[in-house]
Amino acid sequence: MENRLDALKKDAFALSIGISILEVGEGCAKGKMVISPTHLNGVGTVQGGALFTLADYICAVAANSREKSAVSLDGHIDFIKAVSSGTLIVTAKEVFLRRTIAAYMAEIRREEDNVLVATFQSKFYRKD
Amino acid sequence: MENRLDALKKDAFALSIGISILEVGEGCAKGKMVISPTHLNGVGTVQGGALFTLADYICAVAANSREKSAVSLDGHIDFIKAVSSGTLIVTAKEVFLRRTIAAYMAEIRREEDNVLVATFQSKFYRKD
Amino acid sequence: MENRLDALKKDAFALSIGISILEVGEGCAKGKMVISPTHLNGVGTVQGGALFTLADYICAVAANSREKSAVSLDGHIDFIKAVSSGTLIVTAKEVFLRRTIAAYMAEIRREEDNVLVATFQSKFYRKD
Amino acid sequence: MENRLDALKKDAFALSIGISILEVGEGCAKGKMVISPTHLNGVGTVQGGALFTLADYICAVAANSREKSAVSLDGHIDFIKAVSSGTLIVTAKEVFLRRTIAAYMAEIRREEDNVLVATFQSKFYRKD
Repeated sequence: MENRLDALKKDAFALSIGISILEVGEGCAKGKMVISPTHLNGVGTVQGGALFTLADYICAVAANSREKSAVSLDGHIDFIKAVSSGTLIVTAKEVFLRRTIAAYMAEIRREEDNVLVATFQSKFYRKD
Repeated sequence: MENRLDALKKDAFALSIGISILEVGEGCAKGKMVISPTHLNGVGTVQGGALFTLADYICAVAANSREKSAVSLDGHIDFIKAVSSGTLIVTAKEVFLRRTIAAYMAEIRREEDNVLVATFQSKFYRKD
Repeated sequence: MENRLDALKKDAFALSIGISILEVGEGCAKGKMVISPTHLNGVGTVQGGALFTLADYICAVAANSREKSAVSLDGHIDFIKAVSSGTLIVTAKEVFLRRTIAAYMAEIRREEDNVLVATFQSKFYRKD
Repeated sequence: MENRLDALKKDAFALSIGISILEVGEGCAKGKMVISPTHLNGVGTVQGGALFTLADYICAVAANSREKSAVSLDGHIDFIKAVSSGTLIVTAKEVFLRRTIAAYMAEIRREEDNVLVATFQSKFYRKD
């Protein structure tokens, strides 16, 4: 597990957009991203891809907190509230854990006012 | 429409990760992203968030090629083949266009060998 | 609201497969379906379509507990545990409620052992 | 393969709602359902669960046309056009086929006017 979390911590893309891991537990994780001008789309709100990356990455951390290596099969995001500034906090938790498949869900909220920005679901393939 | 596509072309996040628009038609669009080291995750393949951003952004371009402004409601990506290098081409097309809701799907393929990297679906809310 | 819930209670398809509404609250609902031989697929477990119908119908009840009429845009189900007998309980709750779009999630569990059978998400368009 | 398709043909739920298989090919299948009063919801249009069952079942037939047994992991449906009468035709095709995971997509159209009623995506786990 250490090696896999170490690999995740070297994720160049997640690092380049400023995501940091706050907590890792058994099947759960928490992360954050402070909104900066490079996260914004053409109308000045956080781009959907930046939100997806935040949720997807922290779910991958949660999925790889288990004894097996987990590779993402898919990701689904619902965009709820467009935001332009502040600190985004994502919390990921396990929905189910089967032998070869596991699922995680995550919520992205703004720290300052707790507004729900996006919800996310993802399934992972678990390797032996 | 011009103004909306102009706004899309100023998307700081899409620009910062190197996505470019190749074509825009009626309800369709094509884009590309040359894989670079900053797109990679901890195991050296293109990060899911980079793939999502590519597909999501080009679908937004396709959705905003219509007479109404379109705002993304959700995005779903299936990760099919992990890749580490090459040029990714995304093609987006309309699945349906209703008065207030429209849907788009996209495929990401590698230009060099045409391998299917990911498929994507997204729904948009169309404003009057 | 009464009229809409009344219409929902006359849903011929839901009635024909034996789904009943247990509770309706503000943005939430609970229902049940006792597994019978007509719910089963060719390998003797509850068919995915029967599970989908159970979750989708009870989410529609939850969505129409609000002041506006709500029409389903989509539904997503994850199949977690195949079951062959017992009573299925579904609980639906609101994820978000915006002016024109709302989202609900539901869990289907078997009453006898609380095993998680499926999870479900659905978005609705809210009419004025 | 014969045994699996034979099992699928004995699906009590699909049979009870009147779905029939029209064609089975390599990774593809076609089916139909003639709309009857028992398929309708409380406002007189085909219930989402009936549409889901039609698409999900024919995708399962397509998935089990391959050399391995395939079990559905999830299903996602977008509801496009509400219909009340006619014959629904569903066509399912493979999106990708990996060693342990495969994906299918389907379209439901009304035979009489070719109107697009729903689109569907599903992933399957392939057993050895």
